Amino acid sequence: MSNTKVILQDHVREEWIDYNGHMNDAEYVRAFSWGVDRFMNLIGIDEQFRNEQQYTMFTLESHVCYLDEMKLDEPFEVHLQMLDYDEKRTHVFFELYGEDGKRAATSEQMLMGIDQTTGRPGPFADEVFAKVKELADNHTPSEKPKEAGRVIGIKRKN
Amino acid sequence: MSNTKVILQDHVREEWIDYNGHMNDAEYVRAFSWGVDRFMNLIGIDEQFRNEQQYTMFTLESHVCYLDEMKLDEPFEVHLQMLDYDEKRTHVFFELYGEDGKRAATSEQMLMGIDQTTGRPGPFADEVFAKVKELADNHTPSEKPKEAGRVIGIKRKN
Repeated sequence: MSNTKVILQDHVREEWIDYNGHMNDAEYVRAFSWGVDRFMNLIGIDEQFRNEQQYTMFTLESHVCYLDEMKLDEPFEVHLQMLDYDEKRTHVFFELYGEDGKRAATSEQMLMGIDQTTGRPGPFADEVFAKVKELADNHTPSEKPKEAGRVIGIKRKN
Repeated sequence: MSNTKVILQDHVREEWIDYNGHMNDAEYVRAFSWGVDRFMNLIGIDEQFRNEQQYTMFTLESHVCYLDEMKLDEPFEVHLQMLDYDEKRTHVFFELYGEDGKRAATSEQMLMGIDQTTGRPGPFADEVFAKVKELADNHTPSEKPKEAGRVIGIKRKN
């Protein structure tokens, strides 16, 4: 049984198609960036909270695996799993699914809570941290996805 | 002495700025995607070659480190280094520099040559491979950049 959480449902826009006739690599990252926005809303860092608390999240690092092509108008979903977290960071794993359950890409990300009055990392508010913990309790995979923790490199036979 | 190759000079567009008031994470990946286009041109896989040979390159995997913010209209450069290659793949490392030499992001990528008549990986043409080798001979760092080969995770003190 999957413990992923569906956080976004949308479709591939015309302006996302490149000269190769498929969704451009930067647009996969746009879909995942929208996923981060949904994730932030889920844990309570929405527009009102950001404005009132001067607190947001930045992506520190991301690792994308491109698994399959996406075509014009193709519907897609972004799924979330939680890999780890602490008092100011979340280590998240997104999957992008196309038509018929096609697994088209994954994005592993480290997100940092930022106090915008200083521009520096800052801890989550209590109510945000409680929601992070709840998401992690319900959506942490028992086994790490095979695309998580990867190192890029050409493997050679000896 | 640096052995990076400057492959792109441009500036941050208005539509790249997000609600945090800085360049959105997906737009960094767009800048690097343009860098891949320039890299492909450098090794001879330009528009004419793609059309005539039905051969292109796909990004298989990428790892981005976000190091600093980029502001509206800020000029930037994308620099290339070659980490590795074989007969059909290139393992490349891009850096994005903002104003005053600010190192704003890195992107490590695995790029695969694709035979578009089959949709499958295929080896480089001889003249392309020669250019890949020449780039690698001139722009492979003696020491791997510290953002290359990274694994994402929260490190904890014991």
